[in-house]
Amino acid sequence: MRSSQMLIPTVKEVPADAEIPSHQLMLRAGLIRKVASGTYTYLPLGWRTLKKIIEIVREEMDRAGAQEILVPCLQPRELWQQTGRDADYGETMCRLQDRHGRWNVLGPTAEEVFTFHASHEINSYKQLPINLYQISPKFRDEFRPRFGVLRSREFMMKDAYSFDANPESLHKSYMAMYDAYCRVFKRCGVEYVIVEAETGEMGGSGSHQFTVPCASGEDTTVYTEDGSYAANLEKAAVDPLPKQPADPNIPAPEDVHTPHVGTIEAVCDFLKTKPSEMIKTLIYSVGDKAVAALVRGDHDVNAEKLTQVLGGAHSELADEATIQKVTGAKVGFAGPVGLAGKVSRLIVDHAVAAMAVGVTGANRSDYHTKNVVPGRDFPLDGDNVVVADVRNAVQGDTYQGKPLLFKRGIEVGQVFKLGTKYSRKLGATFLDEHGVEQPCLMGCYGIGINRIMASAIELYHDENGIVWPISIAPFEVLITPVNQDDAAVSEAAERIYTELKAAGIDVLLDDRDLRGGVKFKDADLIGIPVRITVGKKSVVEGNVEIKRRTETESRKTPIQEAARTVVELVESLKGQLRP
Amino acid sequence: MRSSQMLIPTVKEVPADAEIPSHQLMLRAGLIRKVASGTYTYLPLGWRTLKKIIEIVREEMDRAGAQEILVPCLQPRELWQQTGRDADYGETMCRLQDRHGRWNVLGPTAEEVFTFHASHEINSYKQLPINLYQISPKFRDEFRPRFGVLRSREFMMKDAYSFDANPESLHKSYMAMYDAYCRVFKRCGVEYVIVEAETGEMGGSGSHQFTVPCASGEDTTVYTEDGSYAANLEKAAVDPLPKQPADPNIPAPEDVHTPHVGTIEAVCDFLKTKPSEMIKTLIYSVGDKAVAALVRGDHDVNAEKLTQVLGGAHSELADEATIQKVTGAKVGFAGPVGLAGKVSRLIVDHAVAAMAVGVTGANRSDYHTKNVVPGRDFPLDGDNVVVADVRNAVQGDTYQGKPLLFKRGIEVGQVFKLGTKYSRKLGATFLDEHGVEQPCLMGCYGIGINRIMASAIELYHDENGIVWPISIAPFEVLITPVNQDDAAVSEAAERIYTELKAAGIDVLLDDRDLRGGVKFKDADLIGIPVRITVGKKSVVEGNVEIKRRTETESRKTPIQEAARTVVELVESLKGQLRP
Repeated sequence: MRSSQMLIPTVKEVPADAEIPSHQLMLRAGLIRKVASGTYTYLPLGWRTLKKIIEIVREEMDRAGAQEILVPCLQPRELWQQTGRDADYGETMCRLQDRHGRWNVLGPTAEEVFTFHASHEINSYKQLPINLYQISPKFRDEFRPRFGVLRSREFMMKDAYSFDANPESLHKSYMAMYDAYCRVFKRCGVEYVIVEAETGEMGGSGSHQFTVPCASGEDTTVYTEDGSYAANLEKAAVDPLPKQPADPNIPAPEDVHTPHVGTIEAVCDFLKTKPSEMIKTLIYSVGDKAVAALVRGDHDVNAEKLTQVLGGAHSELADEATIQKVTGAKVGFAGPVGLAGKVSRLIVDHAVAAMAVGVTGANRSDYHTKNVVPGRDFPLDGDNVVVADVRNAVQGDTYQGKPLLFKRGIEVGQVFKLGTKYSRKLGATFLDEHGVEQPCLMGCYGIGINRIMASAIELYHDENGIVWPISIAPFEVLITPVNQDDAAVSEAAERIYTELKAAGIDVLLDDRDLRGGVKFKDADLIGIPVRITVGKKSVVEGNVEIKRRTETESRKTPIQEAARTVVELVESLKGQLRP
Repeated sequence: MRSSQMLIPTVKEVPADAEIPSHQLMLRAGLIRKVASGTYTYLPLGWRTLKKIIEIVREEMDRAGAQEILVPCLQPRELWQQTGRDADYGETMCRLQDRHGRWNVLGPTAEEVFTFHASHEINSYKQLPINLYQISPKFRDEFRPRFGVLRSREFMMKDAYSFDANPESLHKSYMAMYDAYCRVFKRCGVEYVIVEAETGEMGGSGSHQFTVPCASGEDTTVYTEDGSYAANLEKAAVDPLPKQPADPNIPAPEDVHTPHVGTIEAVCDFLKTKPSEMIKTLIYSVGDKAVAALVRGDHDVNAEKLTQVLGGAHSELADEATIQKVTGAKVGFAGPVGLAGKVSRLIVDHAVAAMAVGVTGANRSDYHTKNVVPGRDFPLDGDNVVVADVRNAVQGDTYQGKPLLFKRGIEVGQVFKLGTKYSRKLGATFLDEHGVEQPCLMGCYGIGINRIMASAIELYHDENGIVWPISIAPFEVLITPVNQDDAAVSEAAERIYTELKAAGIDVLLDDRDLRGGVKFKDADLIGIPVRITVGKKSVVEGNVEIKRRTETESRKTPIQEAARTVVELVESLKGQLRP
């Protein structure tokens, strides 16, 4: 391709609303353009990279024995109601009514539709195992789309669904995907870590998450230094904190007037205490019931752990009216004293149970309660009371006695053992060897295509621009004639261009009528792995200059050997995968 | 691939709700499955064909110099409001509100988004011409989805948009697409005709439609036997009918009581007249104005011609309340007498103006009027009266004196010169050589990917199943071992399978443990162009049988020559394109 005939609108300025390097560079290098909040167009360079990633994913899915299909984006809402996920997704689901009043959703994933097909097409164990996948746009109505294509309302996702007859077979299907994912990320040239992940509302019994470690990532991996443990923050377990010694001299609870203090910090200032000495009380709605969760003031509730404690039930923070009804106070003043009788369950985090005394909301507007002793002033056991691990791990926590470390990353893939959650609800059953009807055992497997692209940029860039791994670079080689109007220069450039094309190299010729400096800046920005510079002076000597994007110094090479040298260089770069 | 590992759910019975051969066969051969009204999943075989078509389209677009990008399905409604097309599409557009209350549409095409990008990225004539395309799902909320993937709510479309600096350049871009379309349809193996098409609400100055002739098609091509004229029904012009001799003895109009007659036919029965002697009066809403169109009782209004007469304005049939208000009568009794003063325009079709006398509605519920003489009882000229061609051509019509013939077909592609309609409204301008700001001249170019698939099946099938053109067949070759459990049979089949794969042939091995008869029936149904039958008896003789899907007799070929023979056959079939 020739730059003069391509739309590559590079931009010097760092776009104001782009917070992280990949978002900035995708805009600056002309890979994407924003259409509206959370929706992007992939321009020619960006789409070339995305297509390369798609092709790698497709090849590895096919190699793993999965079969590609395509299900519609528009899906009947009833299917999602049958599994309960229409409610679970809440406002994150895009929904629309058609002209006849029927509700559709825009698929954020496709468990329901794939299982629907399995329910019709699979009858016998002889048809199993089967693994079906698609690569298609997915939709999430994010509350706050951000980080460019990392958290967007429309994105490209590979989703696969396996159907098996027994747990051993499911495990085999699961591991085939697990291995295929390793090959995909390796071939795309991105570093990744694999951690145990929580299955949450997906249901199921096991999951691994593939994360690209980088500072801008929204996901946190929790691990021990010796590598004996690694999990994502949603899953990461913590050792219970040691029980603080009981102090029999603590006086009875006392309500204190605390007007105009909304936050934990403000209460601490006002009462001269610390967040770790406070008990936060959060009220959740689970269906039509209210549930309370207690965590320390310096801790956060872990939604996935809470879901586990609730036996997989979907919960959401209660609305103002519910909180008022349960606690008798306005929002911000809920507390555990006397609460157990007013909620269907009182869930006490281990760390709260370990406190000797704490400050909490008073269930009375503008009041807090001091001198609250867990076990004395609110129960730690009883029919509807449970003490459990329901908080996020934090700096200072240990697991199995070892300190936990934290690393941020971008989740690029996840594999799940789903079990029978979907197959039971949607009737995807088969007759086994004995003629007995059984629900299929399912797995589901997702890869964020756009996220691979963004995470590669997060991993590999410098102050001048992107440094693509060759396997997903929009082009493998860039030829930059410095003095385009010099006949010898343009002739040498054209010759090498033609030779490289004939050799099957993905090559871009920057034939724009621009100064060398501008071309070099653009070359650094768009990050093509191998660059051939054709300058007036060196051409006179019969040479061109070859350099990798990662190098500062170029090597002089005779014009007639340039193509062959570059073909070899491209081959060797393909072997090393990373830039 | 091996059949035993693929989901190819063939079905014997003709599905009840599938009206046309392509829909029936796509379901029966396991290419697609319905998810909901107008939405389909492409199963492995169907998706393979669709991918092959996509790849052909992509290659020809790239060859023609177009650049592939991807714009989001979710598009801001404001863009569509700026061009007026949000209103034009009416209920056919899928719209949804996001969690923040902002309206989005699901793109039925993408003129708006492409022009939006052009408005930001194109500044100078030096950047022109440019042609951008995408291959992506499109959405139309069809009132009555039908004919399988031919009229569905979600479909795969290639849409391209060109931006040029002047009309000569636009024409060049247009013709490059026109030629590329010819290559696409030829390579996909489908017959096609090219006709002049109406540009309608797309705006613009020229259009051609690519149609695959077949009885099940929804589109009608109108042509003269000598080939001097061809157009789609929406565009096809007709010669005005000869004026019937005036009869001065026709008495004054007379209202007749016609209760309980709703249709033209019922009125004719009741009044002993013929549809061709009646005048139909249709009331349209154009914005907040009412317009009346008169056509003969045996003619239909042509919406595209009406739009032309209205200067491109969008019109729709008025609702009951408006009709009642304009005519003073309930629906079904509108008539032209006295109507000119009550509508903003009275549009009289040529054929009505040519009538000597007619029967019409009386603008009075349950009454018709006899003895209505055009020109005497309602005006044929005046400020708001226009006589024009606003009806569909029908059997018996001529154009330029030659009889018009009619042929049905499936529209698979259309190219448009759009001019500046979108670029003006969305500010896609450039500075010309003289530094003067000019709107880009645009073209738009669409191909229905799914429609190519369906129309190939409409063209090429027999009573046993599909007969694929080799270029878009899900597989090029099918190997059918008849006695799978015979070692010599399975060994020969596996050997040829391996050899063909090594030769780069797209081959399917039917290794299912089924009777030969079942395999043969499926083979005919899924329509793979070349079939190798490996039978017990012939293998003993050292032979297999090779046959094309179009042939009834097979040829014996030695096992060791089978692969080579088939590779040659595949090559020769690729050369002839059609099956």
